[in-house]
Amino acid sequence: MVRNPERRAALVDAAIEVLARDGSRGLTFRAVDVAAGVPNGTASNYFANRDDLLAQVTAQIHERIAPDPDEVAEVMAAPRDRALVVELMHWINRRVAENRTGYLAMLELRLEATRRPELRAALTRTFRAALDDNIRFHVDGGLPGDRTAVLLMYLAMTGLMLEQLTVPGVVPDEETGDVIAALVDRAIGPEGDAG
Amino acid sequence: MVRNPERRAALVDAAIEVLARDGSRGLTFRAVDVAAGVPNGTASNYFANRDDLLAQVTAQIHERIAPDPDEVAEVMAAPRDRALVVELMHWINRRVAENRTGYLAMLELRLEATRRPELRAALTRTFRAALDDNIRFHVDGGLPGDRTAVLLMYLAMTGLMLEQLTVPGVVPDEETGDVIAALVDRAIGPEGDAG
Repeated sequence: MVRNPERRAALVDAAIEVLARDGSRGLTFRAVDVAAGVPNGTASNYFANRDDLLAQVTAQIHERIAPDPDEVAEVMAAPRDRALVVELMHWINRRVAENRTGYLAMLELRLEATRRPELRAALTRTFRAALDDNIRFHVDGGLPGDRTAVLLMYLAMTGLMLEQLTVPGVVPDEETGDVIAALVDRAIGPEGDAG
Repeated sequence: MVRNPERRAALVDAAIEVLARDGSRGLTFRAVDVAAGVPNGTASNYFANRDDLLAQVTAQIHERIAPDPDEVAEVMAAPRDRALVVELMHWINRRVAENRTGYLAMLELRLEATRRPELRAALTRTFRAALDDNIRFHVDGGLPGDRTAVLLMYLAMTGLMLEQLTVPGVVPDEETGDVIAALVDRAIGPEGDAG
């Protein structure tokens, strides 16, 4: 195994591109080499096998679509009220549009996980940890809404992400603002501002 | 083109199996013939090309996972209150588990649609029509909750379906009951019983 971290990162990025473009069945070492613009045979020096490649993509994909901590700090400087939660949901929605490749690759990984128990276990841990982080960020950060509100917003935003990526127009862009405002308002509920 | 409707339906069913099992890139005429247990070359007599096969799967997949109208009538015999909406959401959730193949095939179709504009247009029309049917069924049926409530429940149930199919354990089965109860209660909101 070769140990050049920059090249490894570039190969994982290339694998994410290939996943989004061609689906999991298109993800071969050769396709990764081509997408990364490296000599044929390079990926096979960095990953023991395809499972290893999928595991490394799984480990890094959330990090690669995560927002810049400085951006988070800037958004979170506002008062911790419902308007800020609405702004955070809009931000998630914009991030899906801006990181379409990363989010599509994640959907492909999810489907590949239905065929590979080890990948499913790793992906489940990754998603569960991300959800727990979300809940902690929200509740410990003093944002309105309880743990249940965060979970309901997570599920609805996941649904919206799936529609937006694959069947845009089912929830038209011009309705998204109203949908997000209603989601935040109802998920938090009338009592939520105490939370 | 051969015109045996039973055989055509069996080939579309086989295509749904292949999609769920092998993903969209595994969907070849040959794989469909094998899955349907028919002689090699049969599918090519029924579908002009792969796009035609995908279009016919798209046209029929909702129908194939739709509940029996008699079952619907039986469930809808109950009083039109929040408890009935909760029961309907549980029913959707159980249907995903019981029709795993159909729902996985639909996810594969969604991802294939990101690569095929015509399929995306057809799939978007199909999903939008299903959502409009849902909204009509709910609002015209006198169930509590407005159009927005139905849309929020649709998005959250879509998110839950995706988790359940691909990363079960992110929302553990034993929490699903509470999640669905909270979803219905908050989506409908305190004013919703008038709706």
